[in-house]
Amino acid sequence: MSGLALKLLDELNEIWLFDCGEATQHQILRTNIRLRKVTKIFISHNHGDHIFGLPGLLATRSFQGDVGPLTIYGPPGLDQFVKTSLRISKTKLSYPIKFVNLEKAGKIVDEKGFKVYTEKLDHRIDSWGFRVVEGDKAGELLMDKLAQYHVPNGPLLGKLKRGEQVALEDGTVLDGHDFLGPAKKGRVVTVIYDTRSTPAIGRLADHADVLVHEATFDASESKLAKEYYHSTCTQAAETARAAQVGHLYLTHVSARYVGPLASQMVKQARKIFPETTLAKDLDCFVIPMKGEKNE
Amino acid sequence: MSGLALKLLDELNEIWLFDCGEATQHQILRTNIRLRKVTKIFISHNHGDHIFGLPGLLATRSFQGDVGPLTIYGPPGLDQFVKTSLRISKTKLSYPIKFVNLEKAGKIVDEKGFKVYTEKLDHRIDSWGFRVVEGDKAGELLMDKLAQYHVPNGPLLGKLKRGEQVALEDGTVLDGHDFLGPAKKGRVVTVIYDTRSTPAIGRLADHADVLVHEATFDASESKLAKEYYHSTCTQAAETARAAQVGHLYLTHVSARYVGPLASQMVKQARKIFPETTLAKDLDCFVIPMKGEKNE
Repeated sequence: MSGLALKLLDELNEIWLFDCGEATQHQILRTNIRLRKVTKIFISHNHGDHIFGLPGLLATRSFQGDVGPLTIYGPPGLDQFVKTSLRISKTKLSYPIKFVNLEKAGKIVDEKGFKVYTEKLDHRIDSWGFRVVEGDKAGELLMDKLAQYHVPNGPLLGKLKRGEQVALEDGTVLDGHDFLGPAKKGRVVTVIYDTRSTPAIGRLADHADVLVHEATFDASESKLAKEYYHSTCTQAAETARAAQVGHLYLTHVSARYVGPLASQMVKQARKIFPETTLAKDLDCFVIPMKGEKNE
Repeated sequence: MSGLALKLLDELNEIWLFDCGEATQHQILRTNIRLRKVTKIFISHNHGDHIFGLPGLLATRSFQGDVGPLTIYGPPGLDQFVKTSLRISKTKLSYPIKFVNLEKAGKIVDEKGFKVYTEKLDHRIDSWGFRVVEGDKAGELLMDKLAQYHVPNGPLLGKLKRGEQVALEDGTVLDGHDFLGPAKKGRVVTVIYDTRSTPAIGRLADHADVLVHEATFDASESKLAKEYYHSTCTQAAETARAAQVGHLYLTHVSARYVGPLASQMVKQARKIFPETTLAKDLDCFVIPMKGEKNE
C-alpha cells in the first residue's frame, strides 16, 4: 500500500504526503513525522490501496494540538469518500480541510517558492502524476570579496544580496551581482504512482532530481503490466534515462517480488538507468541541492 | 485500534471478526488467518478506530480464491460507509455481502448450533455488545456399556446417540439416555467494546467462559472514563466477578498505559477478579470446553 512523505521541514516547516494507503498512520508512528506538520496530501487515484488510510490519518491528526488547515489534492469522488467516512464515524476534525479536485493537467500549487504540476497518467481509473518544483535560491553574498568596501551593516547589504546596485558614501557604486555566489538551482521531485508507461511521465519527470516511479512488474511482464495498467521496472528506468533524472526510486512493487526476485528487478532497471534504488518501507532519502553534500 | 478474531475452525470452519480498525488486514498477515474463512464481521460501533479497516479487508478478501458470502452486523450507517468506500475506490467484490443493522437488543444469529445476542451499551454513539453462545454438545455414546447388548452397527446406534429408545431383535428395549456420557456444555464468549459501565454488560456476560472487555482507563480514572463514555479496568473486573465469567481479557487500553502502567492495570483488575489477562496484539487464547484440557 502506498504512502510517501516529502519532508520540507528546512524549506517550509511542512511535510507533504503522496497517497495514503491503509495503515499509513501506523507506519508514521515508526518515524519522527508529526502529523500536524502535514499540510498537503496529494492522492494519485482513488483505488483503495492508495486512499483507505486517509480518514484515519485525518482523524488522528486532530489529536495533535495546534494543527493548521490541510489541503487534499485528488481525483473527484475522493472528497465524498473522506466526508462520508468522517460523517459515519462521527469524526469532527479540529482543523479545516480543503479539497482540490484534479481534473486537468497544469499547476495546482504555487506558494512559498514551491510549485506542483500534475498530468493525467494511463491507469484503469484516472490517475495523476505530480512534479514538485522548488524555486531557485539566490547565491550567498560573498562577504570576503566585499570586505575592502567597508559596506556598513544594514539595508545596503540587503540590497546587494538581492542583486541591486548601491551607492556608498564615498561615491563608489557596487553591483550586487558582482558579489553573489552562484545561485542554487531548486530541486525537482516527480512522483508517479499507478500507470502504464505513457509520455506524460516524461514531461513530469524532465530533468527531475528524483523520480519516484511505480514498478509493479519486472522486465519480463510488460504484457501483464499493460493488461493491468501498470509499469515494469525497465519501463520506469527507460523513462528515467530519457528524462535525464538524477535518481530513480522504484516503489509499488508487486508482493510476488521478494528477496532475490526484488534484487533482480533492481538489476534489470540499473542496466538501463544505473542510478536506481528500490524503495523499501520506511526508507528515507535526502535530496541534496546541487553543490550540497548528501547529509 | 480494535480487531478480534473468534476462530471457530473446528466447530464451523469459519472465523468471525469483532470490529475492524485500520490495519486489521495488516495484522492478519502476521497470523495464520485466511480471510476467506471470515464469514461474519460484528461491528460494535461506527467510530473510526473500529471500522476504518473494513473496506480494505473486504477488498483483500476478494483476492483469496473461492470466497463465500459475508455478513456484516453493525450500527446503521456502516453499510453507507462501506458502500461509498467500495464505490469511490471502484472495488468490485468477488462475493456478496449482506448488512444486518443493529437496532434493538436480541438474537441476531441462530445457525449451525451458534447463537449471537446483542444489547446496546452506553457510549457516546450507539455501541453494541455481543454474546456468542455455542450449543451444548450431546454426550458420547458409551460403547463399553453397550457392548453386552450386541447392537448391530447402523441406524440403531444413531438413534441411541440421539437419546432415543430402540427395540433390539430379542425384544430388549434400550433407552439412549442410559448410554450417553455427560453432555458438553457449549461455551460462551462475550465481547464488549467501547462503553461506560452499564447493566447490559452483566446480562451479556452472565456466566460467560470468556469476557473480552474494553479497559480504556486504569482504576484511578473512573471520572474520566465516565466523561469519555469508557470503562476502567476495575469496572471490567467488577462486571466479570458479578457475572461469574470464566476469564476476563482486557482490551482497548489507552496508549498512555505502557510497560509498568499496563502491568499495574492488570494488578488492579486482578484484586477484584483474579482470572484477568491483558490482551496484547496478536495474542491467541484457547477457550477449552468444560472437561477439555487447554491445548
